[in-house]
Amino acid sequence: MRELDFIEWICSQQEWDPSVVPVGPGDDCAVVVVGGRRLLVTTDQLLDGVHFRLDRDGAEAGGRKAMARALSDIAAMAARPLAAVASISAPKGFSREDAEAMYRGRRVVSEQFGCPMVGGDVAAWDGPLAITVTVFGRPDGIEPVLRSGARPGDAICVTGRLGGAWRTDRHLRFTPRVAEARALAGRCDLHAMIDLSDGLAMDLRRLCKASEVGADVAADRIPVHPDAPDLEAALGDGEDYELLFALGAGQADELVNEQPLDVPVTRIGTIVEGDSPALTGPGGKRKEMPAAGWEHRT
Amino acid sequence: MRELDFIEWICSQQEWDPSVVPVGPGDDCAVVVVGGRRLLVTTDQLLDGVHFRLDRDGAEAGGRKAMARALSDIAAMAARPLAAVASISAPKGFSREDAEAMYRGRRVVSEQFGCPMVGGDVAAWDGPLAITVTVFGRPDGIEPVLRSGARPGDAICVTGRLGGAWRTDRHLRFTPRVAEARALAGRCDLHAMIDLSDGLAMDLRRLCKASEVGADVAADRIPVHPDAPDLEAALGDGEDYELLFALGAGQADELVNEQPLDVPVTRIGTIVEGDSPALTGPGGKRKEMPAAGWEHRT
Repeated sequence: MRELDFIEWICSQQEWDPSVVPVGPGDDCAVVVVGGRRLLVTTDQLLDGVHFRLDRDGAEAGGRKAMARALSDIAAMAARPLAAVASISAPKGFSREDAEAMYRGRRVVSEQFGCPMVGGDVAAWDGPLAITVTVFGRPDGIEPVLRSGARPGDAICVTGRLGGAWRTDRHLRFTPRVAEARALAGRCDLHAMIDLSDGLAMDLRRLCKASEVGADVAADRIPVHPDAPDLEAALGDGEDYELLFALGAGQADELVNEQPLDVPVTRIGTIVEGDSPALTGPGGKRKEMPAAGWEHRT
Repeated sequence: MRELDFIEWICSQQEWDPSVVPVGPGDDCAVVVVGGRRLLVTTDQLLDGVHFRLDRDGAEAGGRKAMARALSDIAAMAARPLAAVASISAPKGFSREDAEAMYRGRRVVSEQFGCPMVGGDVAAWDGPLAITVTVFGRPDGIEPVLRSGARPGDAICVTGRLGGAWRTDRHLRFTPRVAEARALAGRCDLHAMIDLSDGLAMDLRRLCKASEVGADVAADRIPVHPDAPDLEAALGDGEDYELLFALGAGQADELVNEQPLDVPVTRIGTIVEGDSPALTGPGGKRKEMPAAGWEHRT
């Protein structure tokens, strides 16, 4: 099963009333109207052997990453986290010490972001460890930034540096860009945003698809992380959990000049007419963005 | 790891502000205040080999049950479902047809209860199928009914008949008692309620513990389901997804006389001073409620 196709199919099975569910499946968070207020919701799973390894990384790192991944989706909409619930499928032999370590890892992140864990479900089984974290957030004065608002002429920017996260332990200890997203959305009119979980190539493709636009990215502008061996890694490694966003070119120039965040902001390209991103190499040769990036396939 | 002990430990790690989280972990749903309104949240997992068997029961039954189980927690608080998100950990070989069948099963229930699935996460892995469903609800005019409000002298009632659910396919096709709970809470002052997922013995023990009371249950009043071979099965099989609730004796008498629901309501006993439930057999002998019931242990 190809996950992206299935998610696309689910999105086509529209079953929600837009006055109750203004944003359904397919963005980083759904938006649901509760008593006249908008609530953002995202659910995300951390699977042993896929997103981390319990035997190598330990339960505390798992708890930490599970919570941080879900918060990265909240960041992608520039929302403020409110509360979370978690379900834990515990393998045979998962000890009380493991469970408490996982809790501690999760709690460090939840306290840092003011996002208490208010409920959960724990069950033992014969399978590996799986943690699902569902986080809700609220706009709190900032309009949720969707994937779908990019327009031709917009600048494309990223926070931080890309690639190599899983080649070190950076994929376990990243900081979800909640504060950065709110700072950006507070000072700029962000047209579209996504968090980089599966790599720039794939996530920019998603943003382009949602916005029905193309993109021109300059290969030599991509901020390659020192942990990444090459440009390919920066495009396809994934697990960066940085922000990718589109905004007016003038605002992007100011942003890049002023560098108001604790992490660098880099303009990597421009939104254009089209339906998928392209990459211009150092020699000026323009080609389709490689389909690199990380998708689960069964 | 004993799950109940771990959940108790989590509850002891209080980390939430009661003005934001009036009900934290330990009840059927958490209650979170969003923009002055209360939101109910529950998360529940369906694990292949624990709560159903993919090879025997099929993906459609799994989707159906995953959604229905979470809705049963919403029913236990007498809330109205609003929306849901799901995460799916798909085993190798889980086909697109399986995924669509699971979706159909889930959707039958979500349409029946007006609870659209607004988002989700799908990942493939080497483990078995796991589905986590998180449902949000709202009070919608009915005060959420907690586990903790039972008081000595209250009548103890149950809906439906108990036991044998997993001995047939009833555990796959039960109806969460959302409408029944709201009808009951609309006409009676329910002091405490819980849904029967792990069996009367264990779930009554939970209600007693949360309310800091004991209970006297008359063995010959327990409505044993025809699928259950004996009283033990009615006490310990679990997966009934019926409602267990406490209310004033006078209101209980009226309720039992009038039988206003489509399912029978039976008074099975009385809340007393104490800290755990007791069972009085046909011979009048009173003993501690057997510790039967279904708890995962690793």
